[in-house]
Amino acid sequence: MAAAVTFIGVDLGGTHLRAGRVDGQGKLLSSQRTNTDAAGGPGAVIEQIETLVKSQWADDVAGIGIGVPGAFDAASGTVLGIPALPGWTGIPLAAKLRDRLGVPCHLENDAKVAAIGEWHGGAAQGARNFVYVTVSTGIGSCAVIDGRLLRGVGGLAGEIGHTRISDSPVRCACGRTGCWQAVAAGSALDRTAAAAVASGMAPRLAEITRGRKATAADVGVGAREGDAICLAMIDAHAVLLGYGFTNLQHVYAPELFVVGGGLSAMFDLWRGGVERTLRERLLAGFKPADFTVAMLGDDAGIVGAAGIARDAHMGS
Amino acid sequence: MAAAVTFIGVDLGGTHLRAGRVDGQGKLLSSQRTNTDAAGGPGAVIEQIETLVKSQWADDVAGIGIGVPGAFDAASGTVLGIPALPGWTGIPLAAKLRDRLGVPCHLENDAKVAAIGEWHGGAAQGARNFVYVTVSTGIGSCAVIDGRLLRGVGGLAGEIGHTRISDSPVRCACGRTGCWQAVAAGSALDRTAAAAVASGMAPRLAEITRGRKATAADVGVGAREGDAICLAMIDAHAVLLGYGFTNLQHVYAPELFVVGGGLSAMFDLWRGGVERTLRERLLAGFKPADFTVAMLGDDAGIVGAAGIARDAHMGS
Repeated sequence: MAAAVTFIGVDLGGTHLRAGRVDGQGKLLSSQRTNTDAAGGPGAVIEQIETLVKSQWADDVAGIGIGVPGAFDAASGTVLGIPALPGWTGIPLAAKLRDRLGVPCHLENDAKVAAIGEWHGGAAQGARNFVYVTVSTGIGSCAVIDGRLLRGVGGLAGEIGHTRISDSPVRCACGRTGCWQAVAAGSALDRTAAAAVASGMAPRLAEITRGRKATAADVGVGAREGDAICLAMIDAHAVLLGYGFTNLQHVYAPELFVVGGGLSAMFDLWRGGVERTLRERLLAGFKPADFTVAMLGDDAGIVGAAGIARDAHMGS
Repeated sequence: MAAAVTFIGVDLGGTHLRAGRVDGQGKLLSSQRTNTDAAGGPGAVIEQIETLVKSQWADDVAGIGIGVPGAFDAASGTVLGIPALPGWTGIPLAAKLRDRLGVPCHLENDAKVAAIGEWHGGAAQGARNFVYVTVSTGIGSCAVIDGRLLRGVGGLAGEIGHTRISDSPVRCACGRTGCWQAVAAGSALDRTAAAAVASGMAPRLAEITRGRKATAADVGVGAREGDAICLAMIDAHAVLLGYGFTNLQHVYAPELFVVGGGLSAMFDLWRGGVERTLRERLLAGFKPADFTVAMLGDDAGIVGAAGIARDAHMGS
């Protein structure tokens, strides 16, 4: 390939629409964002994407990548449905943008795009084997193994949040029980926190929350003050997180975990418990993978989408 | 590549040593086996391998692959240790055979070799996304996703048997609790069978076993006769197997499971329960993968090892 080409990444969200120009090394050169005109339907949003992409344009742009928060057909570049954007059914997004802008356009799942962003220009740069794990209301993951993004049939690989890990009767958002997400996501720690306050066993947490419902973030505040109950709640939660990370290491054998999502803000608090669980549960022969927090925040979607375009351009 | 080259696959086992010549389409052309001279140490066994390979030789042989039941360094082709073969520590097996036979030689893990055998010439021929799962005393797996064998750091990907799936206190062979293998391998059904006989709740199973310890295979005999207790035990076991298959589909997103190992002889009996569990537990968007039984038996190791040599020859 020619040395000096760049790519435009588009992060198509239900609330915000972002686009940015990224060089071949994953460095974000410029970006812009706007509020998504969800009510205007696909026509209006595609106009918005065109305008945003043109605002970032340069003569060396060789392709466009778009992160899609829904279902799509990668081969034809058609959006099949987006929960947060009504009317996006059977929209040939890639073809429309290619016709208007004159360069190839590629779609990818938004979670995979964030992982690729961290891989090309963030916390996982240079890694050949890593798993990006978002821990917030739910738990999601995307694995890059042997230097390749793992896709599987329909690009569905990585649904670790709904693997069964426990016999707990707690109902998951998916309607089943025993899912890792049901026992270890941020919403599970929210639930534990509220129950601890209600039972009277967490007086400091009750003071912090002053009558409103306690959340995982409140437990973090108490733990940073040194409150023993809050620290113990996080330690107990870290064991449940650790079970899932151990499962991830057993199935994918990564050398690195990149942690994103809301609960990554408390990563320093739960890291010790997760690493201890990993050491206790990993089979002989496995060396516990390293942990790092995602670096790019909102930019991961742009950098990763541009990375999709770059990989397609390089024929990988 | 030239059209008409063949490859020799070697299955290095603690008891038997097998070698065979395989064409580029995964078809086994000829093979031979001998008893492994384990007591003779690496020198004697390497002589045996050389003799076996020469017995299968033809002018079109372009490479040799070897399935190793232990630890090895793939890059240098050095065997680091084999539990069943004393003295195999730091043996540069690939280099020794290349020097003696004049063609490239490659090593691979024996479980991955069996999966590759089924891929190149058996039950998974033509599949782009499948997981080979052996269910016997333990549970092992090897995934081929997006048309590539998943390896991970140290080739350790696929240790599904030791992922945590339950809060059961039953101790696994690895020393931990909650592993899929601990609750769903053949040894778990052995345990259930013995307990059922001891408790007096399985009269037909007690008649079949006549005082000796009941096993999974005995439960299969009773189930085939139509004994309701044996059928129910297999159904209960199938749910536990199904939890793990569902987890595998969530993380790897295969379209096919190839089932090998001792319990695959009873696959027709537990298939229904596993498929029902898969339908109940898979997230929306997933279509339950197909199931098939491994086809190649003992030949999988030879065909797969030759496949390793073929892939290296083709530069993939």
